[in-house]
Amino acid sequence: MNASLQLLLEHRSFRDYTEQAVSDGDLDAIIEAAHRAPSSINGQQVSLVVVRNPATRTRISEIAGNQPWIVKAPVFICVVIDFAKTGTAMERAGETQIIHESLEGFAVGALDSGIVLATLMAAARALGLGIVPIGGIRNDPQAMIDLLELPPMTFPIVGCCIGHIASTPPLKPRLPGNTFRHDEKWQGVPDAATIAAYDAELMAYWQSLGRTDGLPWVENTASRYKRVYFPKTKPVAASQGFLVDK
Amino acid sequence: MNASLQLLLEHRSFRDYTEQAVSDGDLDAIIEAAHRAPSSINGQQVSLVVVRNPATRTRISEIAGNQPWIVKAPVFICVVIDFAKTGTAMERAGETQIIHESLEGFAVGALDSGIVLATLMAAARALGLGIVPIGGIRNDPQAMIDLLELPPMTFPIVGCCIGHIASTPPLKPRLPGNTFRHDEKWQGVPDAATIAAYDAELMAYWQSLGRTDGLPWVENTASRYKRVYFPKTKPVAASQGFLVDK
Repeated sequence: MNASLQLLLEHRSFRDYTEQAVSDGDLDAIIEAAHRAPSSINGQQVSLVVVRNPATRTRISEIAGNQPWIVKAPVFICVVIDFAKTGTAMERAGETQIIHESLEGFAVGALDSGIVLATLMAAARALGLGIVPIGGIRNDPQAMIDLLELPPMTFPIVGCCIGHIASTPPLKPRLPGNTFRHDEKWQGVPDAATIAAYDAELMAYWQSLGRTDGLPWVENTASRYKRVYFPKTKPVAASQGFLVDK
Repeated sequence: MNASLQLLLEHRSFRDYTEQAVSDGDLDAIIEAAHRAPSSINGQQVSLVVVRNPATRTRISEIAGNQPWIVKAPVFICVVIDFAKTGTAMERAGETQIIHESLEGFAVGALDSGIVLATLMAAARALGLGIVPIGGIRNDPQAMIDLLELPPMTFPIVGCCIGHIASTPPLKPRLPGNTFRHDEKWQGVPDAATIAAYDAELMAYWQSLGRTDGLPWVENTASRYKRVYFPKTKPVAASQGFLVDK
């Protein structure tokens, strides 16, 4: 099997790290790989804030709802939607930036941030390092903005821990492939039997980890999506200058 | 150099494909890799529609503003934000889905779609195939919804061509790394000299390709972002059930 493909097939989130630092060379290579990733219209509307300072990581851990791996892993990278950068192009061209007044603008910033995040994760894993994506910073995006001194027209959308692996968790089960892949046209939502079988598999996975707080997919998804799970995204995006009205 | 890392460092968009089909085995492996990628709260709110039918690809090419590589490459994959899938979890739990009424919901769908897209691209390139991401389907998202028979609570956010490489373009220059990477805190937007040097480099790249329509970063970005480049994203998302009011 192709090693690069195998790496992607074995994605997992690592939450157990050693104390060992990530070398400057490894970190440079990981970030350069993410920098080579494509962006919509080559606008390059994503930036990173690389945090190694332990006090800053401790604060980020609190912001994200107390996630101890952010304290333990030596590197945290915040992925930032960045229309401040494109704003400099507008100024130089003597034009007024409008894109950030639209859902399209915020969505393309989030989409491109996902591309950057996936590339960071793949590059770190290529070097034998562990990663875990952190959406929990959207629990309090304003606190992240204050901590990292982010300017207007930017938004901290997601983050990632990187460090040396202390232990490797098993692969987390996914819904079956036919709930993800539709050929030629949409083929419908998962049926009850498919979901029940997946939830049984997921509960066995939680049990294998000794995690008594693990929920089935149905209950986990329902508990988060019966409300707006991170309700500050919209108001903080608005106070940063994103309107999403168009 | 680590081959998996090198692959990421050499990302480029391929627009020149041979007639050769992508094998079922390669396509299965690429999609399985993307299916292993992480999602927010393990919600798995992304699905793919895999299009090989030539007539459908021709129509997608038209929708995306006449991009001939969508006709030529044997596979087009549409990445779909999918809260219809999570909706089945809500139903089974006897709860009402609310997440899609928020910017958070649409943004996390876009973010997770970016992770899936980047993983599709990396997996295809690991197998020696060429790829080009296609944001142009947002030119007319309703036409994509009609063509692929996408249900309410889904949105076709981006796509990707996959095929065998006929010719390999040079790497496209990016803004310098220090405009992408900020250490510890935000370090400011690119200065005028940095942007001017990048635009000179980008114009030399266009010239090397014989592309007389290539614009500098400043003019290209300004021409797209002085308006809402794909203005149908918000109204079509709304008619699909996404409110983004919260």
